[in-house]
Amino acid sequence: MKNILLTIVLALFSASMFAQSDSAFIRKVYDEALENGESYENLRYLCKNIGNRITGSAEAEMAVYWGKQLLESYGFDKVFLQEINVPHWERGTKEAAWLVDEQGKFLKINILALGGSVGTSGLLEKNLLIVKTLGDLKKLDKADVLGKIVYLGEAFDAKNIRTFDSYGQCGAQRWEGPSVAANMGASGLVIRSLGSEIDDYPHTGSFGREDGVQPIPCAAISTADSDKLEDWAKRSKLKIRMEMDCRWYDDAISYNVIGEMTGKKSDEIISWGGHLDSWDVGEGAHDDGAGIAHSIEALRILKVLGYRPNHTLRCVLFMNEENGNFGGKGYAEQAFKDGEKHIAALESDRGGFLPLGFDIEGNENQISLVQDNSKVLQKHFQLYTFKAGYSGVDIHPLKEYYPDMVQLGLAINSQLYFNYHHTEADVFEAVNQRELELGCAAMAAMVYLLDQHLN
Amino acid sequence: MKNILLTIVLALFSASMFAQSDSAFIRKVYDEALENGESYENLRYLCKNIGNRITGSAEAEMAVYWGKQLLESYGFDKVFLQEINVPHWERGTKEAAWLVDEQGKFLKINILALGGSVGTSGLLEKNLLIVKTLGDLKKLDKADVLGKIVYLGEAFDAKNIRTFDSYGQCGAQRWEGPSVAANMGASGLVIRSLGSEIDDYPHTGSFGREDGVQPIPCAAISTADSDKLEDWAKRSKLKIRMEMDCRWYDDAISYNVIGEMTGKKSDEIISWGGHLDSWDVGEGAHDDGAGIAHSIEALRILKVLGYRPNHTLRCVLFMNEENGNFGGKGYAEQAFKDGEKHIAALESDRGGFLPLGFDIEGNENQISLVQDNSKVLQKHFQLYTFKAGYSGVDIHPLKEYYPDMVQLGLAINSQLYFNYHHTEADVFEAVNQRELELGCAAMAAMVYLLDQHLN
Repeated sequence: MKNILLTIVLALFSASMFAQSDSAFIRKVYDEALENGESYENLRYLCKNIGNRITGSAEAEMAVYWGKQLLESYGFDKVFLQEINVPHWERGTKEAAWLVDEQGKFLKINILALGGSVGTSGLLEKNLLIVKTLGDLKKLDKADVLGKIVYLGEAFDAKNIRTFDSYGQCGAQRWEGPSVAANMGASGLVIRSLGSEIDDYPHTGSFGREDGVQPIPCAAISTADSDKLEDWAKRSKLKIRMEMDCRWYDDAISYNVIGEMTGKKSDEIISWGGHLDSWDVGEGAHDDGAGIAHSIEALRILKVLGYRPNHTLRCVLFMNEENGNFGGKGYAEQAFKDGEKHIAALESDRGGFLPLGFDIEGNENQISLVQDNSKVLQKHFQLYTFKAGYSGVDIHPLKEYYPDMVQLGLAINSQLYFNYHHTEADVFEAVNQRELELGCAAMAAMVYLLDQHLN
Repeated sequence: MKNILLTIVLALFSASMFAQSDSAFIRKVYDEALENGESYENLRYLCKNIGNRITGSAEAEMAVYWGKQLLESYGFDKVFLQEINVPHWERGTKEAAWLVDEQGKFLKINILALGGSVGTSGLLEKNLLIVKTLGDLKKLDKADVLGKIVYLGEAFDAKNIRTFDSYGQCGAQRWEGPSVAANMGASGLVIRSLGSEIDDYPHTGSFGREDGVQPIPCAAISTADSDKLEDWAKRSKLKIRMEMDCRWYDDAISYNVIGEMTGKKSDEIISWGGHLDSWDVGEGAHDDGAGIAHSIEALRILKVLGYRPNHTLRCVLFMNEENGNFGGKGYAEQAFKDGEKHIAALESDRGGFLPLGFDIEGNENQISLVQDNSKVLQKHFQLYTFKAGYSGVDIHPLKEYYPDMVQLGLAINSQLYFNYHHTEADVFEAVNQRELELGCAAMAAMVYLLDQHLN
């Protein structure tokens, strides 16, 4: 009995010691992020001195150049590039569309080609087939679709508190719509933008391309113009006239950019990152300049505080999340080839808004371990949510090679994210400095906790 | 034993029934707020069709007129005005200041008279005494202060995660600075704005006025100009030239605006509100148009859902929070005079950003009761924090008359609040529709939970 009591007392004592030292260290992390933070200026530089950066572009290569320079400037133990093949698609210079009613009245509408679409080879005019959802389209006869341009108009469901749930629900019209419409003989597809607000910004994004299906021009219409289109369609049959000269080029060579602090157990690795590429509009500020700024700053903070990691800590600026995820896949393949041992990975790819906690992908023990050790973040650092959930696209391929690892995604206030996502509006000015800095601190704090408490 | 088991089973069953019915009802609350919400258009109307609304202004009276009309349009059981005396101060038309160095080089700086300041009677030129904090000022000899204009330059501490903590820390330079400086013989006071961001917007606000102390002109300087001032002061003694023609008028008559749904126990009252007045710059959108929009919408939602309250539910649009709190005091006095029984009150006065939960003022049992019944909000409705904490200025006077009541303040993401607070930047466009709507739903949900579970 005495021994049991002693054990309990020691356990409590040691738990409280740990918690106290965690809390003290994490307080330093927050102080550094909030008082001496460099994330905001780094993001400004990436957005304003480089700009948007789709793979294959000069800007994507400048982003690699910048990322490597910046990581080197911080004096980490290792900084290196990891070569990958990336797709190269360009929007071109022509992108316009008009609705035309039966009386010949016409209205110019705001469109963006979906990323990976083919062009129209000049001005394309077709009858417009108005369909509410992808499910409705699938129920139609091919004959009704043949030769028409299909409009898919599923809107964001405002009732979901988490906007990512709405994105998941109506996202299929972008992800699958192009191949479904093409398979049914459509001449093109336009979709209502996957945006949560009624405004004039169309939202681009990728879609699945099926081998053996003749590709058709695909574009997104702003939500405000989609409302107008649906309104016009109540009174008249509509045609659409559109021109896009986007096109594919040969694959290009690009790079993941990696910075590392070597740990005492150097062969066990904790990685985290965001993606360095972006869509080819706006400045890729929230998506995912913020994740890049978070990730670099997390490693900088740990280094500046003189932290000596147990495991090897790696910040990865993944290339090509947006259209292929070859950066994430390449990183995972290379890790496996090199016989590395990956025990944990984190991702930030949900914008630079207020961080709320982490979503955790792992087994029950791992989830409990993260939850237990996150109590200090709940108690002292205004982070709230640590639940089982999705981590992130870039780090997911690691899980295929290391099924036993734990993965975490930084959970962020999602209310405004889909006002900016994949649009011209996603610029530096849409990111708040303090919210960005709190995200950096949250990432650094969680890396620290994992490094301390994972075996 | 059987009886005990039965009791436990029944208790569990009934708790789960409650929770289930709470969850189902609150889901309807959120659906109504997010899909059919009127809060955003109400806020637009208040901001754009009325504007800022300090007591004594025509706009404040238009806000009363609007509030009563709007509450009446919703068909609540009672809508009534409650007369109160309010102060009447006006900024006037002259407000300018220049720094002047020893070489006569000068710089126009952005200032706002603090609310309640006296004017300068023309152009006032004085030597500037640079002091970092109010504590430092108090340590000086009166002879060093006499005849000078004091500059108090305590900045927001970026290290506090909650910006309200920083406001509390450096706030004394506004609240107490004017009377301390006047008592020491200063000819005026200028302070670094109580703002979290470096920008060109000065932040006004109220301060304590001591009887028998000759008032002096007091103004806030934008944080960007405060940085410049502190920089110039390193190289040169400085003078300041300033003119303000703000002044006091006789008290005016104004009103709290109250809407009520009468409960089954009609003599027990749950009140909630925000404040209808604002400072005389910007549009009072976050402070506190958002709280007004939250409060009205909460009652509208309960009414539209056909909710039959147990207690009498009252939405109060308090007048005069900003410079006197005579609305809050008047409401409490009247309640006590009328022999009303107030069991709970809620306030929203921290902006229209993402709601995170509620801060609770009450005894341990009340805090536990709120926490227990809020689990449904944590589980299903992305609210996170339910801790002991400050409720709000408007409802606080009630606590003096009803010390046994429980009071709650809507807790909101505070990161951006002090970029807008009491400035020209606090306009409708700074409020996001979904975040505002989530605040409305949180208020309605908490009113419902209190009405259901408070005895």
